[in-house]
Amino acid sequence: MNYKSGAILVLSGPSGAGKSSLLNEVINDIGECYFSISTTTRPMRQGEVEGVHYHFVDEEEFKKDIEQEQFLEYAFVHGNYYGTSLKPVKKALNDGKLVLFDIDVQGNTLVNNRLGDITTSVFISPPTLSELKKRLEARSTDEKEVIDRRVKMARKEIQRISEYDYMIINDNLAQAANTLRTIAKAARLKVPDSEINEFVQKWEDID
Amino acid sequence: MNYKSGAILVLSGPSGAGKSSLLNEVINDIGECYFSISTTTRPMRQGEVEGVHYHFVDEEEFKKDIEQEQFLEYAFVHGNYYGTSLKPVKKALNDGKLVLFDIDVQGNTLVNNRLGDITTSVFISPPTLSELKKRLEARSTDEKEVIDRRVKMARKEIQRISEYDYMIINDNLAQAANTLRTIAKAARLKVPDSEINEFVQKWEDID
Repeated sequence: MNYKSGAILVLSGPSGAGKSSLLNEVINDIGECYFSISTTTRPMRQGEVEGVHYHFVDEEEFKKDIEQEQFLEYAFVHGNYYGTSLKPVKKALNDGKLVLFDIDVQGNTLVNNRLGDITTSVFISPPTLSELKKRLEARSTDEKEVIDRRVKMARKEIQRISEYDYMIINDNLAQAANTLRTIAKAARLKVPDSEINEFVQKWEDID
Repeated sequence: MNYKSGAILVLSGPSGAGKSSLLNEVINDIGECYFSISTTTRPMRQGEVEGVHYHFVDEEEFKKDIEQEQFLEYAFVHGNYYGTSLKPVKKALNDGKLVLFDIDVQGNTLVNNRLGDITTSVFISPPTLSELKKRLEARSTDEKEVIDRRVKMARKEIQRISEYDYMIINDNLAQAANTLRTIAKAARLKVPDSEINEFVQKWEDID
């Protein structure tokens, strides 16, 4: 039997955990992926690309999807809607892809509530508080108060690591990448409840 | 950070699913393992080896372990105790091994209740009912009524596949072995709650 349907890999972790570098290390080794991006009604800005930066839709479509419960979560900010739509996720799943979510702890709960049967979750953490501060300070772009806010948020998120299937302490990039690679390969093997039920049904019917 | 503690991989599935053949295919590729075996107070028979066929203990030790809740489950049969003791499992975990359990659906529930944080469970199924019958009939040793009982039990167990983290339909041995290999490698990466709590604690204390 071949499993044709895809699966979901949730990656959470504070900024400074090194999620992007880690993902870059493994992305070519884990089969076809779809990186989940937000949907918005705000107009496309110069340089932005549909399906890369956002899925751009009009308000009518967004509202229809809200009614049909197609959003994991959404918000109305400065006159525009932003949200995580399940529609592109479901399309990618139908195409057999591994859907990657870079979301926070709340987002992980939402994904698991809706699609828990095919979801594997990983929390990526910097090794220590001082290392996190060092990494954030090394990014010259961030103001001191931005760093403080991020550190505070990181300490809050880390309290909830046990809600995840796996944790990776990103101390050594190559080692952490190996771990993520193994987890991602296994994540793809999750079988949706719908397929299990179909299989189980066959054993009930025949006699 | 290196995770020194081991983890658990539960394998369930009806006889005829091909668990043993599958395990033989992968056992050399998934690192150091400990195959959980039962503990008994019954005397060792000729040809039996301590730690291979059973852990042989006296009644005093067995009863002490019952009191100290060291058994996942136990039964008193024909004047002897039989049970799944946690003591050798914990020792193997401390040695960093992957502990393999070949147990039924009830057993999987018990393991998950006690050690769910480090447990990954896999249900291995024959592809179809007719294939299961064919496999069981091919074993010349089994009487017709034994086969019928096994088929009935298989159909009952298969109803509970969705309680497992993964399912493998053992249609093609090489393919199923690949799947099990991937799952077993990821299973080893589970971090026990105790280690997570220790890590989390460090982020709480420092300021």
